[in-house]
Amino acid sequence: MEIGLIGLGKMGLNLAQNMQDHDLTVKAFDLMPEARTRAAEVGVTTADTLAALIDSLQTPRLIWVMVPAGKPTKATLQSLRELASAGDRIIDGGNSYYQDSLAEAKAFDAKQMHFFDVGSSGGMSGARANGNFMIGGDKAVFATIEPLFEAIAQPGGYLYTGPAGSGHYLKMVHNGIEYGMMAAIGEGFDVLANSPFDYDNEAVAAMWDHGSVIRGWLMELAADAFSKDPKLEQLKGVMHSSGEGAWTVEEGIRQHTPTPVITAALMARYNSERTDTMTGKVVAALRNEFGGHPIDKN
Amino acid sequence: MEIGLIGLGKMGLNLAQNMQDHDLTVKAFDLMPEARTRAAEVGVTTADTLAALIDSLQTPRLIWVMVPAGKPTKATLQSLRELASAGDRIIDGGNSYYQDSLAEAKAFDAKQMHFFDVGSSGGMSGARANGNFMIGGDKAVFATIEPLFEAIAQPGGYLYTGPAGSGHYLKMVHNGIEYGMMAAIGEGFDVLANSPFDYDNEAVAAMWDHGSVIRGWLMELAADAFSKDPKLEQLKGVMHSSGEGAWTVEEGIRQHTPTPVITAALMARYNSERTDTMTGKVVAALRNEFGGHPIDKN
Repeated sequence: MEIGLIGLGKMGLNLAQNMQDHDLTVKAFDLMPEARTRAAEVGVTTADTLAALIDSLQTPRLIWVMVPAGKPTKATLQSLRELASAGDRIIDGGNSYYQDSLAEAKAFDAKQMHFFDVGSSGGMSGARANGNFMIGGDKAVFATIEPLFEAIAQPGGYLYTGPAGSGHYLKMVHNGIEYGMMAAIGEGFDVLANSPFDYDNEAVAAMWDHGSVIRGWLMELAADAFSKDPKLEQLKGVMHSSGEGAWTVEEGIRQHTPTPVITAALMARYNSERTDTMTGKVVAALRNEFGGHPIDKN
Repeated sequence: MEIGLIGLGKMGLNLAQNMQDHDLTVKAFDLMPEARTRAAEVGVTTADTLAALIDSLQTPRLIWVMVPAGKPTKATLQSLRELASAGDRIIDGGNSYYQDSLAEAKAFDAKQMHFFDVGSSGGMSGARANGNFMIGGDKAVFATIEPLFEAIAQPGGYLYTGPAGSGHYLKMVHNGIEYGMMAAIGEGFDVLANSPFDYDNEAVAAMWDHGSVIRGWLMELAADAFSKDPKLEQLKGVMHSSGEGAWTVEEGIRQHTPTPVITAALMARYNSERTDTMTGKVVAALRNEFGGHPIDKN
């Protein structure tokens, strides 16, 4: 099986190596020459232009797009509609918004090309081996590309989820759950840090990962992080976000499905990006106005 | 090593069998004759009274109390202060409030007995094998009972956490984290249930447990639950709670540590126990008063 892989960043390069480990033929392209060089150094065949990559692939082509969601993905998919052929199979493996994926599926459909929206989980290590994939698209055509997922996913770690859009929708919700789980873990360690006891964060996380109810990969990663920096003093507690949590909350709003925990996790991320808040100023001002309560001055 | 085990309920009986599997000598008692009979049937030696159990143990005794937190635990620990001897080692393995455990430790100290507050995680299956334990108490005396935990815990799954109180404090926070993680998972499946797609909950949970970022025991249990009841139609979504989540939030309040996600999870549990809310009535009434918005009548 031959795969054309577009995007050789931290996810794409790991995916390329994962595929090659399973005797899949990878031909790859990245806009950045340095990314192509890095890939070539680990034995990945690269093309110098997108057109050259497309030309080099056997039809019907199987093309995996692994570039940042949003504009880079949209531009790449638009180019593929121009360069690829009817019958080709196009995978968007990024964290695209599912509404965008619905639109892309329609646009590819008009070209008789087959679009799959694939949510990829498991982080960089999952891309490298034993990944996790949620795959939306045409079921019959999926059967022709299933061996790819059998090869690169953890056994049991991929799922055909239904029509186009369903893969990225499921990845959106996966990430929403992730927001809540991570915030809960973070809050727990915050309470421990302010407790009357002197806990060893790494030892606690490692112990919890061995047999407790809250064991899992996130707890394992917490132990890893604490092993490098026992109180995470090298970090600032600023939590950026790239959209999926917000989309999950928006989806809950659209559905009238209450998502208080995922919403609280999202709002806590936004709060963490600020050094001061208008909320705080207004509440402090009002407490001062009605009760003469002291204010902290800028 | 010989252990006197008090409490042969769903946790205690599993623990007894776990201990026996590791060549530990278990002598047990439960107030309920049926519980003693059930234990005897699986080969656990039982005593008919607490006093008889205490008498049958070699000194210095090692006694594990595994009865419900609150009054049953308090009453049992009080009895042990009367029946046991100086030098004996007493474990409270339940979900006691850490402030209670601090008081118990003092009371045992006055009797020259050694109290350990042990948070037990891993559920019934963890009690049965490969459990997870957080142990507070005197460090030197802990060394005399550590082989017990080596035997019944998952390798890497127990931790001496510091002085008395620190074991149950850590278990409290563990359960607070658990509240947030479970609520996030629940909300995610709620959004999926109301999505435009037709997901197979069991397949999704099983796939997520194989290689995704949110893999872990809770996701495995979700897959198990969906395998028995694909949409959980046999259940009502009422989420009871037994205190640890509330204590974590109270601890955050005492510390001024923000715990928005764990708090939201706790409040969602309280909401789920109600069939109607005064909050809802007041908001509906106010919307009706100022805007003539329709109200649902009782």
